[in-house]
Amino acid sequence: MSEQRKLKLGTIIHGVGGNISGWRHPEVQGDASVNFEFYKYQAQKSEEAKFDFVFIADGLHINEQSIPHFLNRFEPISILSALAAVTSRIGLAGTLSTSYSEPFNVARQFSSLDHISKGRAGWNVVTSPLEKTALNFSKSIEEHPYHAKRYKIAAEYIQVTKGLWDSWEDDAFVRDKETGVFFDPEKLHQLDHKGEFFSVEGPLNIARSQQGRPIIFQAGSSEDGKNLAAKEADAIFTHHPSLEEAKEFYQDVKSRATAFGRNPDEILILPGIGPIVGKTEEEAEQKYQEIANLMTIDKALAYLGRYFEHHDFSQYPLDEPFPELGALGQNSFKSGTDRIKQEAKEQNLTLRQVALREATPRTPFIGTPSKVADLIQEWFEACGADGFIISSSIPSNLTDFTDHVVPILQKRGLFRTEYEADTLRGNLGLPFPINRYVQESVKK
Amino acid sequence: MSEQRKLKLGTIIHGVGGNISGWRHPEVQGDASVNFEFYKYQAQKSEEAKFDFVFIADGLHINEQSIPHFLNRFEPISILSALAAVTSRIGLAGTLSTSYSEPFNVARQFSSLDHISKGRAGWNVVTSPLEKTALNFSKSIEEHPYHAKRYKIAAEYIQVTKGLWDSWEDDAFVRDKETGVFFDPEKLHQLDHKGEFFSVEGPLNIARSQQGRPIIFQAGSSEDGKNLAAKEADAIFTHHPSLEEAKEFYQDVKSRATAFGRNPDEILILPGIGPIVGKTEEEAEQKYQEIANLMTIDKALAYLGRYFEHHDFSQYPLDEPFPELGALGQNSFKSGTDRIKQEAKEQNLTLRQVALREATPRTPFIGTPSKVADLIQEWFEACGADGFIISSSIPSNLTDFTDHVVPILQKRGLFRTEYEADTLRGNLGLPFPINRYVQESVKK
Repeated sequence: MSEQRKLKLGTIIHGVGGNISGWRHPEVQGDASVNFEFYKYQAQKSEEAKFDFVFIADGLHINEQSIPHFLNRFEPISILSALAAVTSRIGLAGTLSTSYSEPFNVARQFSSLDHISKGRAGWNVVTSPLEKTALNFSKSIEEHPYHAKRYKIAAEYIQVTKGLWDSWEDDAFVRDKETGVFFDPEKLHQLDHKGEFFSVEGPLNIARSQQGRPIIFQAGSSEDGKNLAAKEADAIFTHHPSLEEAKEFYQDVKSRATAFGRNPDEILILPGIGPIVGKTEEEAEQKYQEIANLMTIDKALAYLGRYFEHHDFSQYPLDEPFPELGALGQNSFKSGTDRIKQEAKEQNLTLRQVALREATPRTPFIGTPSKVADLIQEWFEACGADGFIISSSIPSNLTDFTDHVVPILQKRGLFRTEYEADTLRGNLGLPFPINRYVQESVKK
Repeated sequence: MSEQRKLKLGTIIHGVGGNISGWRHPEVQGDASVNFEFYKYQAQKSEEAKFDFVFIADGLHINEQSIPHFLNRFEPISILSALAAVTSRIGLAGTLSTSYSEPFNVARQFSSLDHISKGRAGWNVVTSPLEKTALNFSKSIEEHPYHAKRYKIAAEYIQVTKGLWDSWEDDAFVRDKETGVFFDPEKLHQLDHKGEFFSVEGPLNIARSQQGRPIIFQAGSSEDGKNLAAKEADAIFTHHPSLEEAKEFYQDVKSRATAFGRNPDEILILPGIGPIVGKTEEEAEQKYQEIANLMTIDKALAYLGRYFEHHDFSQYPLDEPFPELGALGQNSFKSGTDRIKQEAKEQNLTLRQVALREATPRTPFIGTPSKVADLIQEWFEACGADGFIISSSIPSNLTDFTDHVVPILQKRGLFRTEYEADTLRGNLGLPFPINRYVQESVKK
């Protein structure tokens, strides 16, 4: 392990929470998901702690059973742009779907965010797991592309986007007032992409940014997802219940990246964790129980259904073995539903047990500051992770972590005490991407 | 005229300028179109002057001949959201095309901006005039919808968007922590829109905003444009070379609004003007000449071509009558090209004359502060305008106006000295739109 390897940290900001019942906690502001002051506070707090980035997840379809946060929340481009104006060093990453948007618009919006923030933008490429999303976009459910096709679309989409981001060479804009030359036409390139799913002429109407182009995140854990990430992504947002699984995933993706001819150090594996920190083990446990106890079995069943194409789990007996579901869940959150089915079988779980643990998952990262720091160090040094994305059920989960765990990580030399660079790319330790047209002309 | 009628003012922020050569002026920052500090300064300066809104125009296709500002500029949603975080009272309006986007995404992004800004968002609905835009969106030029069809699409698009914005009644989110009720399902409505061009199920995943929904701007001046605006818009961004034409347009649109059953006071007509203010008439004239002299005939011809589907005007003799162009220009900027052809014929203009005056149009609003204030008052009181959108070729055009003309307008009681409301809708004096489902149930 090189001495230079440093932990990366991000914060997922998600208003009233990623948990279906967490909003009931006394500490949570009921309107947090559409409260700009809340987002600003979390972003500034994360910046004070020298985190690499904040992260905004997204979705494009809701119904009455959706998690409260999903029902009424900010859209990523707008909230990240607003946060760009009230922060100066932290990265700003968010989700946008390649299944229900246009590459020209998305390339432009993320590039514009990248300019506003002076090189701090990140795009989490997702393919939209829910087939009902199609209904919000003038399509029938049948037209929602199946899993493998969604990833083929996404792969081409990223190619188009990266191509558009290279429309202008870094020094294309001359702006010579004397001669009246605004740009050098030799340094303007038309993409002329014609592929299986997209045909996009270009050029993009915005320059390259300070970090060359936005950082690409990817979050899928299926075979298709891992291959796309290994080929195209700069960072992966993933989830693992144990270090063993995290290590397996880490090695798997890094090997795939190597096979694609990439330097495996240039793709960062960042599991999401929900640390709950207390002064003592008991206090931490008590904090976890306060959150878990807000959950009811009805809500937990409804939540579980969301991952299985909105299947109605209330039809099954609660305390008998988890039901046989056949192919349900194959087209939506495939890696997640495969895991749930497998675990239920291997561990002989009842429906009640599966529903409750999925609704408020118990992470290993619960305990005193030094215990949580130890676990983070262990995962990091054992190559289970290059860093973590911190998710908090209640706001103090984040501040407990930044105030009590981060100083320990800094003291151990694992995490920065000051930003190394001005851009997200620089802080993540990733190399500046050379414009494809410059690279081509160097090769010649 | 009621005594309460007050002038409305907006600023169009456009970086290096709406003029093809203005960027060469010593006062202009060459990177202004992608310089957040510049946008922030103009927005804050406009807010200090108690303007109603700032406005960001847009386009989705460029080539080497495009205006410098168009080549490399911020995208509206992102820059408006960033400005929301550094302003508190001024409205934030921007252009987004209904021809190359999805109503669900656009409804959401503007609503999110509306929540971030606490009720200050405005959407300028455009249909994308340039057929080459299609090439950036996987379509052939032939697939770019023709003028009338674009407006049919836009009309249905606005219906869908307004419908999605009513997905939640204003008091739908109960957030009762004791009972665990986050929202009242009776106050959630699924749109289920199925029309000629769109089929969108809903609901939208964001609540109504403080001003109910974003303000709708419209900018087309063709027959189709005027009808759409009269039916759906809250405000119209228009352009007129003289008061006579402004009055004609004003009466025309207000009558159309009345014919659609609307209160004509609830649609505001806002011509764009480019005031150039000097201490004396001579100083103002000199400032205009400094800007006009930056233009060359080559650049002016290229600029003119843009409005006629990128026609090459360099093929014609410069000092002979303006060429016969047949149907050229009918599918792009129809109202503009009709006017150019008509004026050239009526006034016996040469190609050189047409090109130069289109490239740096000479507005009547050039002169001392009191002369410009007089003209504004005249247009306003003669019902040529409900207010104006101020466009500046160089940054001091705006500050000259806010520092020297606005105080005169305030002294005369024509313009506010303090904001009347927290929302854009409130400041524009427009009524809060009642949710369609509440309205229906009141009718029953």
